[in-house]
Amino acid sequence: MTVNPLVSTRILVDLLEGLSRFTCVTPGVTRLVYDPAWCEAHRWLAERAHDVGLAATSDSAGNLFFHDPALRPGDPSPEVVLTGSHLDTVKHGGAFDGAYGAVAGLLTAAEQRGHQGLPVVGFVTCEEEGSRFPEGFLGVRSLLGMYRAEALDRVRDSAGVSWRAALEAARERGCAAPLASGDTPFRPLFRASAQIELHIEQGPVLEAAGRSLGIVEHIAGTIRLRLELRGEARHAGTTPMALRRDAFAAAAEIALAAESLARDMGDPAVATAGYVRPEPGLFNVIPGACELWLEARHTDSGALERLASHIRHSAGEIAARRQVTFAATEVLHQPPVALSRTLAERAEELAKERELSCRRMASGAGHDTMVFAEAGIPSLMIFVPSRGGISHSPEEYTAPEQLLTGCRFLSELVGRIARGD
Amino acid sequence: MTVNPLVSTRILVDLLEGLSRFTCVTPGVTRLVYDPAWCEAHRWLAERAHDVGLAATSDSAGNLFFHDPALRPGDPSPEVVLTGSHLDTVKHGGAFDGAYGAVAGLLTAAEQRGHQGLPVVGFVTCEEEGSRFPEGFLGVRSLLGMYRAEALDRVRDSAGVSWRAALEAARERGCAAPLASGDTPFRPLFRASAQIELHIEQGPVLEAAGRSLGIVEHIAGTIRLRLELRGEARHAGTTPMALRRDAFAAAAEIALAAESLARDMGDPAVATAGYVRPEPGLFNVIPGACELWLEARHTDSGALERLASHIRHSAGEIAARRQVTFAATEVLHQPPVALSRTLAERAEELAKERELSCRRMASGAGHDTMVFAEAGIPSLMIFVPSRGGISHSPEEYTAPEQLLTGCRFLSELVGRIARGD
Repeated sequence: MTVNPLVSTRILVDLLEGLSRFTCVTPGVTRLVYDPAWCEAHRWLAERAHDVGLAATSDSAGNLFFHDPALRPGDPSPEVVLTGSHLDTVKHGGAFDGAYGAVAGLLTAAEQRGHQGLPVVGFVTCEEEGSRFPEGFLGVRSLLGMYRAEALDRVRDSAGVSWRAALEAARERGCAAPLASGDTPFRPLFRASAQIELHIEQGPVLEAAGRSLGIVEHIAGTIRLRLELRGEARHAGTTPMALRRDAFAAAAEIALAAESLARDMGDPAVATAGYVRPEPGLFNVIPGACELWLEARHTDSGALERLASHIRHSAGEIAARRQVTFAATEVLHQPPVALSRTLAERAEELAKERELSCRRMASGAGHDTMVFAEAGIPSLMIFVPSRGGISHSPEEYTAPEQLLTGCRFLSELVGRIARGD
Repeated sequence: MTVNPLVSTRILVDLLEGLSRFTCVTPGVTRLVYDPAWCEAHRWLAERAHDVGLAATSDSAGNLFFHDPALRPGDPSPEVVLTGSHLDTVKHGGAFDGAYGAVAGLLTAAEQRGHQGLPVVGFVTCEEEGSRFPEGFLGVRSLLGMYRAEALDRVRDSAGVSWRAALEAARERGCAAPLASGDTPFRPLFRASAQIELHIEQGPVLEAAGRSLGIVEHIAGTIRLRLELRGEARHAGTTPMALRRDAFAAAAEIALAAESLARDMGDPAVATAGYVRPEPGLFNVIPGACELWLEARHTDSGALERLASHIRHSAGEIAARRQVTFAATEVLHQPPVALSRTLAERAEELAKERELSCRRMASGAGHDTMVFAEAGIPSLMIFVPSRGGISHSPEEYTAPEQLLTGCRFLSELVGRIARGD
């Protein structure tokens, strides 16, 4: 392993613990984009960047960049290698999701500063989870200049506050640059020749396999269906079993069919029924209506479509057999994204050289990296294990030595890519 | 059919339509006990009793009795034959549940007045559904003198109003007699030698079988279970199917197992999963916990116990196989009640004589009659068809000629019983 004066267990743990103190509520960490805790965390990270000799530059959406003070972001935007993650969290989330990659990006930018090759820039996106603005990936999309001005008034949080108003409040707190004039308010500050995101796995695979690193080749696509089932609300005591049209019984059967179909298809297929609501929801009334939310994910586009189609088909059969009517609305259709095979190979070579146990894998969750890759930027994700596969929870945990392994690996990999080694 | 000057389609429909106008909200009928609509309906019914020459006497709980003005209710309480039903409704209920039997009781008391044998008294109970006071059967239990004074302060509605306070307000409106002093505030005004309740079926059996009358031999018992399932809330995208402990999937399987067990046992066994709530209830989180409400009913005590026990056993197996923990709370255990075989035979004889198609059947729903029978009073229920089996709904409907058939049958049957024919 390269001698590495900056990245240590101590500094990693200190930065992650420091960040986790910026939360609006407890337990866990809740930093919704532009809220007071998020703004304080944003300013605190900028100070930590200054501590290690970096400049910290906000773009007009509140994304934050850590870079050599000699590097001038803006127009024309310099070509760089980007590495980072997001600062926002889910409600009552953990201290690692996003924060780990953000801190690692800062430390990597510091460590690679002044080395030959492309400049390495750390980044922190402002809204990945979609916990405040349900649009999701607002940060990375604005970082890449994908939004037009109309989005600032269209995108609103659950309280009706527009992105424009929320962003203005954050700007007043020093966490965002002024909007560019005209129809393209967000102008990219850098041009990424490659992007690598370090992240906790948020699943149990690396832990179960006893590996230190995951090299993520694919990000699964997701199809979400909202099903509305309608049967007949009848007295639960007076309606014989043979004369029922029970909308919840149909929903239960559909949920189990989705589970079976994903199991039969095998990994990495998954299907989940996360929400169900029978009406009227009483002991003594057969549910006359039932809402059911289903989600299917797969890393292969064709397989994802097949899985979703089989689930719809089963749902139709089950509903027809039970004389329950059925409407399905597709509320999300996010195709799978393949990441850079070249970068994955470079990562695997480095892991071999360093005798680090790793496996190629897929990410079942969406990440900013998905948007970078879709924009045509060679991109990769590196995972470290998550204890118990737990994430989006105050119990989220990765041991300091595992964090260190991931961060040192990232820094060395990014350095090689920047130098074109 | 006996010549019958009083009971006609016209008077039945007029009385039922008249009653249905007393509702707190629309659609449908909502008369919660002692509320303004209930009080107005109470007074209106008393006036209708006066119209046909009857006295209308309220007891101290607000139950209402229609009787020959020559008959003196109270201590010592005269022996009578009772027939009636309840005045309260569920929220957004129909115009027939309760109201039909109450109106029929009034008309029967009027028609049988002055005939030889025991006096026939019509009754209207004040709280059968339990829509305001979840205790349920408050009316019939107070009518039978079953409550002690403590209940007046213990029993409260969802707003925290005590039975005592609610009753006092109704008394001020003239809908209840003063409470008796001492520990037994409700003193029976009559001693019932028999009780017959006419009611709409609230199920689809008579309609499906094309019969005019149901002679109800049994009222089903009910066991209600609240299940709490606990698995692991994990990311729905990153957790492979084989590593899941999905609490909702377990609940879905248990609900379907309960359905199968009731089907396999055959009529009159029923089992219903009316309510389910997965936590946290999101697209992208495997439910880590799930509440499930299950209900089983049967007219045979042993069969009911077996059905509930098989459901619990299946739930345990399913939960264990899925590594989900499981706690079941029995929130209701109401044994089945057998009604009077003698009265059922008398009813069947009369139906044969009058060439009315009928069938012996069970009631899957609880009724005031259950409490009369449990108190040792020879009791019977007569059902008329419900269109589509719909009840507890504004769509509840029975055709006027079917209502008339039931009411005339009731009057003649009650007359025979009163005379000891």
